[in-house]
Amino acid sequence: MSYNSFGHLFRFTTWGESHGPALGVVIDGCPPDLPISAEIIQRDLDRRRPGQSRFTTQRREADKVVILSGVFEDERTGGLKTTGTPIALEIQNTDQRSKDYSDIRDKYRPGHADYTYHQKYGIRDYRGGGRSSARETAARVAAGAVAKLVIPGVTIRASLVQMGPHKIDYENFDWDEVENNPFFCADKIAAEKWTEYLDEIRKAGNSAGAIIEVVATGVPPGWGAPVYGKLSADLASAMMSINAVKYVEIGAGIEVASLTGTDNADEMRAGENAPYFTSNNAGGILGGISNGDPVVVRFAVKPTSSILTSRQSVTTANEDTEIVTKGRHDPCVGIRAVPIGEAMMAVVLADHFLRHRGQTGREGPVGF
Amino acid sequence: MSYNSFGHLFRFTTWGESHGPALGVVIDGCPPDLPISAEIIQRDLDRRRPGQSRFTTQRREADKVVILSGVFEDERTGGLKTTGTPIALEIQNTDQRSKDYSDIRDKYRPGHADYTYHQKYGIRDYRGGGRSSARETAARVAAGAVAKLVIPGVTIRASLVQMGPHKIDYENFDWDEVENNPFFCADKIAAEKWTEYLDEIRKAGNSAGAIIEVVATGVPPGWGAPVYGKLSADLASAMMSINAVKYVEIGAGIEVASLTGTDNADEMRAGENAPYFTSNNAGGILGGISNGDPVVVRFAVKPTSSILTSRQSVTTANEDTEIVTKGRHDPCVGIRAVPIGEAMMAVVLADHFLRHRGQTGREGPVGF
Amino acid sequence: MSYNSFGHLFRFTTWGESHGPALGVVIDGCPPDLPISAEIIQRDLDRRRPGQSRFTTQRREADKVVILSGVFEDERTGGLKTTGTPIALEIQNTDQRSKDYSDIRDKYRPGHADYTYHQKYGIRDYRGGGRSSARETAARVAAGAVAKLVIPGVTIRASLVQMGPHKIDYENFDWDEVENNPFFCADKIAAEKWTEYLDEIRKAGNSAGAIIEVVATGVPPGWGAPVYGKLSADLASAMMSINAVKYVEIGAGIEVASLTGTDNADEMRAGENAPYFTSNNAGGILGGISNGDPVVVRFAVKPTSSILTSRQSVTTANEDTEIVTKGRHDPCVGIRAVPIGEAMMAVVLADHFLRHRGQTGREGPVGF
Amino acid sequence: MSYNSFGHLFRFTTWGESHGPALGVVIDGCPPDLPISAEIIQRDLDRRRPGQSRFTTQRREADKVVILSGVFEDERTGGLKTTGTPIALEIQNTDQRSKDYSDIRDKYRPGHADYTYHQKYGIRDYRGGGRSSARETAARVAAGAVAKLVIPGVTIRASLVQMGPHKIDYENFDWDEVENNPFFCADKIAAEKWTEYLDEIRKAGNSAGAIIEVVATGVPPGWGAPVYGKLSADLASAMMSINAVKYVEIGAGIEVASLTGTDNADEMRAGENAPYFTSNNAGGILGGISNGDPVVVRFAVKPTSSILTSRQSVTTANEDTEIVTKGRHDPCVGIRAVPIGEAMMAVVLADHFLRHRGQTGREGPVGF
Repeated sequence: MSYNSFGHLFRFTTWGESHGPALGVVIDGCPPDLPISAEIIQRDLDRRRPGQSRFTTQRREADKVVILSGVFEDERTGGLKTTGTPIALEIQNTDQRSKDYSDIRDKYRPGHADYTYHQKYGIRDYRGGGRSSARETAARVAAGAVAKLVIPGVTIRASLVQMGPHKIDYENFDWDEVENNPFFCADKIAAEKWTEYLDEIRKAGNSAGAIIEVVATGVPPGWGAPVYGKLSADLASAMMSINAVKYVEIGAGIEVASLTGTDNADEMRAGENAPYFTSNNAGGILGGISNGDPVVVRFAVKPTSSILTSRQSVTTANEDTEIVTKGRHDPCVGIRAVPIGEAMMAVVLADHFLRHRGQTGREGPVGF
Repeated sequence: MSYNSFGHLFRFTTWGESHGPALGVVIDGCPPDLPISAEIIQRDLDRRRPGQSRFTTQRREADKVVILSGVFEDERTGGLKTTGTPIALEIQNTDQRSKDYSDIRDKYRPGHADYTYHQKYGIRDYRGGGRSSARETAARVAAGAVAKLVIPGVTIRASLVQMGPHKIDYENFDWDEVENNPFFCADKIAAEKWTEYLDEIRKAGNSAGAIIEVVATGVPPGWGAPVYGKLSADLASAMMSINAVKYVEIGAGIEVASLTGTDNADEMRAGENAPYFTSNNAGGILGGISNGDPVVVRFAVKPTSSILTSRQSVTTANEDTEIVTKGRHDPCVGIRAVPIGEAMMAVVLADHFLRHRGQTGREGPVGF
Repeated sequence: MSYNSFGHLFRFTTWGESHGPALGVVIDGCPPDLPISAEIIQRDLDRRRPGQSRFTTQRREADKVVILSGVFEDERTGGLKTTGTPIALEIQNTDQRSKDYSDIRDKYRPGHADYTYHQKYGIRDYRGGGRSSARETAARVAAGAVAKLVIPGVTIRASLVQMGPHKIDYENFDWDEVENNPFFCADKIAAEKWTEYLDEIRKAGNSAGAIIEVVATGVPPGWGAPVYGKLSADLASAMMSINAVKYVEIGAGIEVASLTGTDNADEMRAGENAPYFTSNNAGGILGGISNGDPVVVRFAVKPTSSILTSRQSVTTANEDTEIVTKGRHDPCVGIRAVPIGEAMMAVVLADHFLRHRGQTGREGPVGF
Repeated sequence: MSYNSFGHLFRFTTWGESHGPALGVVIDGCPPDLPISAEIIQRDLDRRRPGQSRFTTQRREADKVVILSGVFEDERTGGLKTTGTPIALEIQNTDQRSKDYSDIRDKYRPGHADYTYHQKYGIRDYRGGGRSSARETAARVAAGAVAKLVIPGVTIRASLVQMGPHKIDYENFDWDEVENNPFFCADKIAAEKWTEYLDEIRKAGNSAGAIIEVVATGVPPGWGAPVYGKLSADLASAMMSINAVKYVEIGAGIEVASLTGTDNADEMRAGENAPYFTSNNAGGILGGISNGDPVVVRFAVKPTSSILTSRQSVTTANEDTEIVTKGRHDPCVGIRAVPIGEAMMAVVLADHFLRHRGQTGREGPVGF
């Protein structure tokens, strides 16, 4: 058991606070002999990094990752390889500005974990939320980058599919657009409209919620294990553990409530080497096990609770007060949740790949 | 690690197939010296039991539970008490009718786990879905009944809040109505309407999805642990692990996507002994830790995949075929998911209660 | 985490008390598609079964095992196969004679766990020691029998190598002798001498300690994982968890303290396909990982604490008393620890086999 | 599951290689609000630190520990306190001299883990043994220093009780002597004799084994949990996981084999507030649960395998070769195992303290 670890065979532990000297992750159980580099991890971190547009926090963090263990020189290529021992990754905090937070030392910010951390532990690091800060997600993204090395046949992509009340039009969906706008949005037209919307929100000192869709293709049938190690259950836990997430769905998700059995169950047809499904309401998972179709997960991120509007709150002495959260914040934290969602998909799949291989001796299905 | 276990300090392992001789659960880590009886467990099992109305499967199972270990006579009362050692509970299967399933031996049923179990393991117990059958949930309900003994100050209730496309009206919400209709529905008027709807569905050999809401009151601030042991993450995993569940949300859930920061964050006011929240969009959880408000979880159950309409499928030899699932099935499995959702809420809370007590030495918050 | 579970990928949970209706084990994570039968498990149970000679307890238990889940008919052979789902095994208790224990309800037996269970839990099942009884080891032996199916290339054997102060002569060591005497002793001559010794002990109402050696051959290099999942650490935990065990060693064990570096480190020579070691002080384990040599573990079992001599003790009210433990007991519990030690070796190796396969994708070493 | 983590509620994960940039440990689950400082951890690290006498390796490492997370300023005292979030501790490697190891790149050192790491992972960091180096134990000692803060009522001490074939005389046993000689030996006279013995060994380029005894006093009855979470089983695993350990015993240990039941079982007498034991063959543990007596563990460390005598070995291409291990090594690694054994005792006890408190709500026994 562990509070700050995730996974079983591919298992990682994160540590660090928003305003401590550094944060990091230790990845245990990674297969040996995989080519790895700080650069490949940095690439994913850079996508999550703050301060890249006016729509994310202006905190300036280089988020430069260093590999401290678990790798060794590959004499043939001169590059690094994993050795099978724990991979420790570390990121220095460089732009903390603790003074920004001094006025919330004695107040609980609505929507934040200030109150619950204090009541649970009797002590809290109030600077930037301490451990409850979304800075922890940098460590997840680093772990996810390593997880992707474990499952090279799998492609993981994500897109913002709703910002505030505004949804994308799936007719326009194009993965290639995701990197072309500051929202990681696969619908070019929606992204344009969102610019205006979010500018308004931002200027009003307000914030917006969002929904992210994460899709993994190339997952063979057979990953995931009933009944409490279901791929769907682990994905739900993974996504719900991300800061500010309040909702998770697989495949048709909430829509299944309204469907009849006739409409919901994906029919099958004989394919060349294996059967295929004529639809994917299941989101690639049946009985908690991947069925070969794309694994589709969606989750909702609540609007940033740190806003410039004055809010009613209480002091740590249980007295009424008002609070305005200054500091540098994201008008829509959902944006930066896109690479985080990809990372959590990667760690769940890497773990289940290893678990499946351990139990069955195969990397995929028995086949036909 | 374990595939068929759930929880950490309050941890249980379920076993058994739909058409094996029995199914059961072993609960490990239960606190000692708690009064317990087969009757108190049976009461919860009876609510989940099939065959209680025309809206649930006609399979006739007594679901009679036996306590095999972990209890001892309390000499003072003559009743039983937990001893702190593993509690083994067992339920015999008595109405299996294996012949009903012989025609699906060589076919994969759409929407079921037949294909994925086969491809994962290379062998499957096709009788009633084997391990993937919802009969496993009887074991969860039994575990949940024991979990409730661990947290006597907590009240857990659930209601069906949507059947097919039909939602309840929260204006009519009354917990006392839940046991007055065959749907465990807190809205008396909705329940009446649903009768007609589900009769139609049933007669058409079709099935309907549903949404269940589970609410726990009396949970003190402080349960749940960041960042991967969040109460919300464990609830998401718990609910998503139930058969046929495709969506889970906490508090305002998917609605948070559409809210602005001003509207979403629950404000606080000073109360007599502790602060209180003026709304509960958070569903009782902030930063993964309970905040003292009711813990609110909703999840969607897909329509039963076993329907009488012919569906396209494939054989285990990857040849096209058609399939009609005979046998005795629930027109809306969501109904029986109500006590199951309550049970999963109970096991998550009991586990986090013990974890919180272990780490902090307190059963609740530090207080004011 | 779990108190009554062992292992990670091959993980089992035992339950049951000495005088409850039954005891059992649930094995989770067993690979699918392995031929299995109740008979193959019964064979190992029969070796541990009490009442087989005058040197073991006269309690008459058939120890008849039943498989309740996790298996399915192999249509080709008509036999059973594992399905990859939890295997529940159950053994009824048939000869409990609870009255034998009524006089110890209010007294703590020296050398037993009566005092510690009571002080830990505040309640104890005093009948035969309840959960602390060595009857729990039947469940281990059943789990071990299944574990052996997972690693068919490995041969596990054990022998009593010391009874009381009397050691075997390794010159006489012959595995074929183990089943020819009531002591599971590989030294025929020692076994003969022990008969007289143990008869004396038994007639005096006394008991004797013992040392058991367990050897696994056929373990390839590569199983076990640094640094806390070392094969040696897991074997130490496995053996020390057996009732009455107070000492565990690997290979040369305690002798390494007296050796110099020159004498201790096993030298290597080039073999046909792989190097070999010219000695085996390491007991087949280097750095926590198997090296291809036989894995050798030894452990000591203390003399049965239930003896007919009156002993000083206290009551549950902390008053001085005397106690004579009646009932039916083993003069040397070490004898029946032989099959138990084999079982624990099997479960550790099966677990590490699966863990190694999960992490590396190989079942053995990289080779040359 | 995790390969490089230890414990359940008090759980830590170590990382780092002998010749990487740093090594460290992440401690998860530590109770909040405990006073802590780098100095208090450093004190324990300094006892393990190499280069303190001619009897330990001349590698010069400052072993300076830094706290990177999990602590916060206590406003009242100005000191640091734990916050309940993960505590990351890091130690830079400063004196690596990788060139010393270049000649063993293609050879397996006898007694070392070179061969098994290579065969398991297909790749190994040969510099100083990489992950298999005893440098990892610095991280354990750091974790142990934090564990001691969790159980302030417990005193943990250790002594070398045998070096090579030379045992201490328990008549001379005096804990106060432990810090007065370079061997952490409680027998002043033995320590003097050992100086001469070890000087000879050292000058001959040879090495010596040792036995360490660790004793914890102040452990209340009730810690430890049957049947696989026994205090004894976890201690066995903890000690056996230390580099070079081949044997572990509790209390009378191997001696129990030779004792009869009359001699072995510790008798009890009524004490003022609780019963006491008239002897401690049990080593403070009955049925896997502490009984209030000192917890006594002994373990043997094999002689350092790195010696200056030429040894037969093979190359990574399976060809015969000879090897002399140069570099800077301990003539008796058992010496520095003394603070490591204390640390492992501390982490096991801290974990079981929290587990006991979680399950029962008490910190000790029910009492009389």
